[in-house]
Amino acid sequence: MNIFIVYAHPEPQSFNAAMKDTAAEVLTKAGQKVRVSDLVAMEFKAVSDANDFPRRADPERLVFSVEQRAAFESGLTSPDIAEEHEKIIWADHIIFQFPMWYYGLPAILKGWFDRVLSEGFAHAPPRWFDDGPMAGKRAMLSLTTNGKPSGYAADGRHGAMEVLVWPIHNALRFCGFDVLPPFVAYDVVRGDGERRRAILSAYADRLRGLAGDKPLVFHGLDDYDRDGRLKAGVEPRTAAQRMRLDKDGR
Amino acid sequence: MNIFIVYAHPEPQSFNAAMKDTAAEVLTKAGQKVRVSDLVAMEFKAVSDANDFPRRADPERLVFSVEQRAAFESGLTSPDIAEEHEKIIWADHIIFQFPMWYYGLPAILKGWFDRVLSEGFAHAPPRWFDDGPMAGKRAMLSLTTNGKPSGYAADGRHGAMEVLVWPIHNALRFCGFDVLPPFVAYDVVRGDGERRRAILSAYADRLRGLAGDKPLVFHGLDDYDRDGRLKAGVEPRTAAQRMRLDKDGR
Repeated sequence: MNIFIVYAHPEPQSFNAAMKDTAAEVLTKAGQKVRVSDLVAMEFKAVSDANDFPRRADPERLVFSVEQRAAFESGLTSPDIAEEHEKIIWADHIIFQFPMWYYGLPAILKGWFDRVLSEGFAHAPPRWFDDGPMAGKRAMLSLTTNGKPSGYAADGRHGAMEVLVWPIHNALRFCGFDVLPPFVAYDVVRGDGERRRAILSAYADRLRGLAGDKPLVFHGLDDYDRDGRLKAGVEPRTAAQRMRLDKDGR
Repeated sequence: MNIFIVYAHPEPQSFNAAMKDTAAEVLTKAGQKVRVSDLVAMEFKAVSDANDFPRRADPERLVFSVEQRAAFESGLTSPDIAEEHEKIIWADHIIFQFPMWYYGLPAILKGWFDRVLSEGFAHAPPRWFDDGPMAGKRAMLSLTTNGKPSGYAADGRHGAMEVLVWPIHNALRFCGFDVLPPFVAYDVVRGDGERRRAILSAYADRLRGLAGDKPLVFHGLDDYDRDGRLKAGVEPRTAAQRMRLDKDGR
């Protein structure tokens, strides 16, 4: 397997760095090929703006989906984005290693999603979801948080972890990725050395079994009607959609 | 009222720009004071890195929460962040105007959350949630999406809109903001001029009644036990927590 780690933390001594290094080491030892994008070290451009499109399809008005698609189709994708595209094409599996900040991706990694998973390359409606260009590739979030697991329970003050990661997971699914269950390292800032070693060890075990991991369930396009809603009789099976079963009947 | 609009789109002719301009005009006419941060025009720095902390509390290892708090307490917050702090202190109400990209904030706006809503200033645990430093201020998301409303229904292929915005809403609540229901402009890229005018008109109406809007319900700290889970007998009332009522009993 070819494994691409997209890593978003500026501190080489951070726990995120240790997780990234553990993954590279364990996977390489297991005979996999590993490449890493260290976004902060690369000074990866996070912001989507007109500079991404020096030759505009529409010079009058910047619409990202239009410009991304035109740039992709004419081979004019910005070189820093094209380099990431090449790594994605190479990869069977992408691991996103990041600290969860404000219940989401750090800005530099969100910028990677916005710019790299571009229209034309990563989605090209109606090629999306199970029919998306990334179909057959796998993706997994590996994230850290300072909170304790109980706060991320379904009745926790942060909200259920699977609800918090749903927007990220569904973005990946939108492009066609199979999404594996996330690996979440809780309470890492306060954790002592022993706790950290235990997490790294559990993560190493998880990675050794990666090929056998089963992806999360998403509904296929066939489950939806023309309006993009689940057809009558289709039981909702995802974190976001199980809400339909609430007692309010929403 | 003092109203601070944080705006994240690079194109002056975009629908987001029209919404920002509509808000500024309608609110000013109604006698409110309005300030705008146009993040892309300001070239706002999105990425959290060591450059934010030229004088480090811990030169050995960069931990953002530690450095943000130390910088805030010693008056060494980066000038571009301190300027945003001043606007937040001035404001009674913040409106976030942005295109929803990949089910979340554009990177530049996520960077504003990561860097500006900093430890020490916007949260200082155990001062968080209803006890957070931003208590008494109101916030509202005003967002655009190319999708149709049906795709964002509870059984829609994108997931329920209220689940998608939960991580952003709860991040604001984490700081103490009262969060108003979002204003969502659907299907804006394909929409014609008439449709766009109708949305802007509905948005103007919403803004005229802003002072009377009731915030969304979040559980108070008293509803949670020491582990940060809802106490026995407390009925879950939020988008993320209603999941507990699923038939799986999760």
